[in-house]
Amino acid sequence: MASLKSRLEHSVTPIALRAYFAEYISTFLFVYASVGAAMASRKMMPDAASGSSSLVAIAVANAFALSVAVYLAANISGGHVNPAVTFGMAIGGHITIPMAIFYWIAQMLGSVMACLLLKTSTVTQQVPVHAIPHEMTGFGAAILEGVMTFALVYTVYASADPRRGAMGAIGPLAIGFIVGANVLASGPFTGGSMNPALSFGTSLIGGSFKNQAVYWIGPMIGAAVAGILYDNVVFPAEVPISDGIGV
Amino acid sequence: MASLKSRLEHSVTPIALRAYFAEYISTFLFVYASVGAAMASRKMMPDAASGSSSLVAIAVANAFALSVAVYLAANISGGHVNPAVTFGMAIGGHITIPMAIFYWIAQMLGSVMACLLLKTSTVTQQVPVHAIPHEMTGFGAAILEGVMTFALVYTVYASADPRRGAMGAIGPLAIGFIVGANVLASGPFTGGSMNPALSFGTSLIGGSFKNQAVYWIGPMIGAAVAGILYDNVVFPAEVPISDGIGV
Amino acid sequence: MASLKSRLEHSVTPIALRAYFAEYISTFLFVYASVGAAMASRKMMPDAASGSSSLVAIAVANAFALSVAVYLAANISGGHVNPAVTFGMAIGGHITIPMAIFYWIAQMLGSVMACLLLKTSTVTQQVPVHAIPHEMTGFGAAILEGVMTFALVYTVYASADPRRGAMGAIGPLAIGFIVGANVLASGPFTGGSMNPALSFGTSLIGGSFKNQAVYWIGPMIGAAVAGILYDNVVFPAEVPISDGIGV
Amino acid sequence: MASLKSRLEHSVTPIALRAYFAEYISTFLFVYASVGAAMASRKMMPDAASGSSSLVAIAVANAFALSVAVYLAANISGGHVNPAVTFGMAIGGHITIPMAIFYWIAQMLGSVMACLLLKTSTVTQQVPVHAIPHEMTGFGAAILEGVMTFALVYTVYASADPRRGAMGAIGPLAIGFIVGANVLASGPFTGGSMNPALSFGTSLIGGSFKNQAVYWIGPMIGAAVAGILYDNVVFPAEVPISDGIGV
Repeated sequence: MASLKSRLEHSVTPIALRAYFAEYISTFLFVYASVGAAMASRKMMPDAASGSSSLVAIAVANAFALSVAVYLAANISGGHVNPAVTFGMAIGGHITIPMAIFYWIAQMLGSVMACLLLKTSTVTQQVPVHAIPHEMTGFGAAILEGVMTFALVYTVYASADPRRGAMGAIGPLAIGFIVGANVLASGPFTGGSMNPALSFGTSLIGGSFKNQAVYWIGPMIGAAVAGILYDNVVFPAEVPISDGIGV
Repeated sequence: MASLKSRLEHSVTPIALRAYFAEYISTFLFVYASVGAAMASRKMMPDAASGSSSLVAIAVANAFALSVAVYLAANISGGHVNPAVTFGMAIGGHITIPMAIFYWIAQMLGSVMACLLLKTSTVTQQVPVHAIPHEMTGFGAAILEGVMTFALVYTVYASADPRRGAMGAIGPLAIGFIVGANVLASGPFTGGSMNPALSFGTSLIGGSFKNQAVYWIGPMIGAAVAGILYDNVVFPAEVPISDGIGV
Repeated sequence: MASLKSRLEHSVTPIALRAYFAEYISTFLFVYASVGAAMASRKMMPDAASGSSSLVAIAVANAFALSVAVYLAANISGGHVNPAVTFGMAIGGHITIPMAIFYWIAQMLGSVMACLLLKTSTVTQQVPVHAIPHEMTGFGAAILEGVMTFALVYTVYASADPRRGAMGAIGPLAIGFIVGANVLASGPFTGGSMNPALSFGTSLIGGSFKNQAVYWIGPMIGAAVAGILYDNVVFPAEVPISDGIGV
Repeated sequence: MASLKSRLEHSVTPIALRAYFAEYISTFLFVYASVGAAMASRKMMPDAASGSSSLVAIAVANAFALSVAVYLAANISGGHVNPAVTFGMAIGGHITIPMAIFYWIAQMLGSVMACLLLKTSTVTQQVPVHAIPHEMTGFGAAILEGVMTFALVYTVYASADPRRGAMGAIGPLAIGFIVGANVLASGPFTGGSMNPALSFGTSLIGGSFKNQAVYWIGPMIGAAVAGILYDNVVFPAEVPISDGIGV
């Protein structure tokens, strides 16, 4: 049984530090492309920012950039790129709590830095903040975000499962694609975040924390349910599952 | 020769129950993204819901979400996510009739639940129902749906074929891509369903069963032809084909 | 040295007949989605059929459907799905002339059948024919089609090369993606065919053979150059290259 | 220690010449599709050239064409297709300086030839040149291009890393996808080049070298940082990293 001290020491080994750095870089690159695409669409079509072609642009940017961000960090940190994914992995016992906290810090920093860079270099553009339409309740929005994050974390678990065989090679694509599909499904309803770090970064730099709770509570619950379900119902592990973290 | 009783017992083993659960989850996630994208497009462009960019949004959501849904269930239930695919597999003898019936139930439940969730959380949005334009006949629509489902089931057979070698790794992408391409080809003609569970769920929650038969008869015939053709003409099996179901 | 008689006998073995059938099915499915997407876009936006979102719809349909068509036939017939590809393979000696002729027949039949089916079931829709704008010459259009077919056949050669290792698994995606990219690059200039069977099928059912030569001469020359270049300059074979045909 | 003479001799072996040729072909094919898509979008929507659907068209063309260009050259030249990538590889010591110079020449020639061919065959179309909007500074644009090229070169390093295992098979897709995502994020801000050869070719044939320095300095610095970071921080090599060049 590990004491708190030994757990903390375990969290600052060179391998662990490298994992935090990989999470920082990958989250930065993902948020840069995701938020940048939303800003580019708004600049191009200011009077029709909510059109279907803008939604396609943002969804494809999310799908492509998340696939690559996960790919880049997959065999260093497990490629979470998302506090909800890290939470879902911690629930399943695939990452220790101290390490998960450092993952969260790296992801939040990466997201804030990406939003800050976009705002300063594009000069006149505002960073868009996730929002929900008037007729929807925060509760309804949290449910939608929760269901979509469930889909994401369930896919992350499936991708990390060694029993997937040769199909494991396309795991990062599957993770990016499910988020891209769900951005298309949720754009005008919740904005399609599924990622508390993404929502936090845009809120901090965009200057509005309205409905922020929706983008934390929904995804966290969805992630926890996915982790519990995958490990206990769908695939009760007979062999230990490697979550791709080199520890 | 298996008696009815032993066949039914075979259908309720833990492995079989896990397969039904995997079909339920994957169909739920696929229908959620597919129908959600149609609702999002309609909300964004209510006066031009039939534009090309809406069609791209819906087709990409279908392609991405189906790829992932198949990926998630592939090595648990075979990743059918579609009663027509299950029918095509039953025709080829790759799944027993009792199991196929439980698959159908799981798929229908998943689809209905996804549509119900979308309707209740978006509050004012209607679930869109597949429809055919005035100038087309139901017979013509059934032929189109049948041909496209033939393409889908033929691809499912090819993906499950162990003789495909290293390319087997991209099987779930191929299955998602052929449906995405055919949604682009059929959007304004039949809506591009190829999936009786999808059409049933939207009809039940959307409140219209008009032309429902088109989305059952066409796909079922297309699926059956694909199964018979693949096993007997294109690839008469010399080695037993595993359909990915762990039974 | 094979006599004409033995070559012809070689062309009608069960394995060869299966290859022709696979080419027929794959070409049918590819042309169905490709032409269907063009018809769907025209139906949705009749007054703006040439918009960018229509081009995206058609290009994505081509990319996805060709990836799958190649995937389906890859380990049966080599997955040509295109008379220019077959010609490029014949130039490199990877398929005999009699077999290539049967491949052509299968591809042409598949394309014509797909166009015929689309025209009859959609009732009031015309099959769109590839065309070049007024300011361009047929010569310029043939050069563009030739360059793009060069890209396609060069990619087919690279995908069939066993020295590609693990990346061979994504070969069908590469073949579909290069055609999708080039449809985006050439839509308003030549229509982006790169496939004489596709142009022939749409011309026969659409009722116009204007500029048909452009879509045969350009692609054939491009394909021949690609085959010669790949085998002799880029990758002079030290080990025999299997073209994926089971003969 | 190699003298200048032996280094130069090393740069003109048949294997090296083949690598230059592969870079020439791949850059030509990539630039053809990338610039062609921008020209096609402009021809289709001359009064709304900056719409979101044009951006999607250009981004998808970049993603698909770059994936294929890298795929084609991966096991011949390493699949750089971009002087900034070659620079990033030279910084990390994965290619000698004389070879890198020949790579640059091949890439520049490929880009110029593609732009020239597009201009002459489309007759009345201008080759579009990368530009930055009035409110942005050249410094800000260089930072954006630098960050995006960092993402690209970091992905190239990760793809060439043998420790990536089975996921190495999707490396070319990851490289294409990160560029596609970043074109969506930067279209209306810098045009989304990340490639000095692409910017040079369009500038030479399009007839404007305004802001050219932005598209050289930004990407080169971003590429250098990525190379240094990957080799020394993220993945300090314990085993020698093959960069895919057959020398």
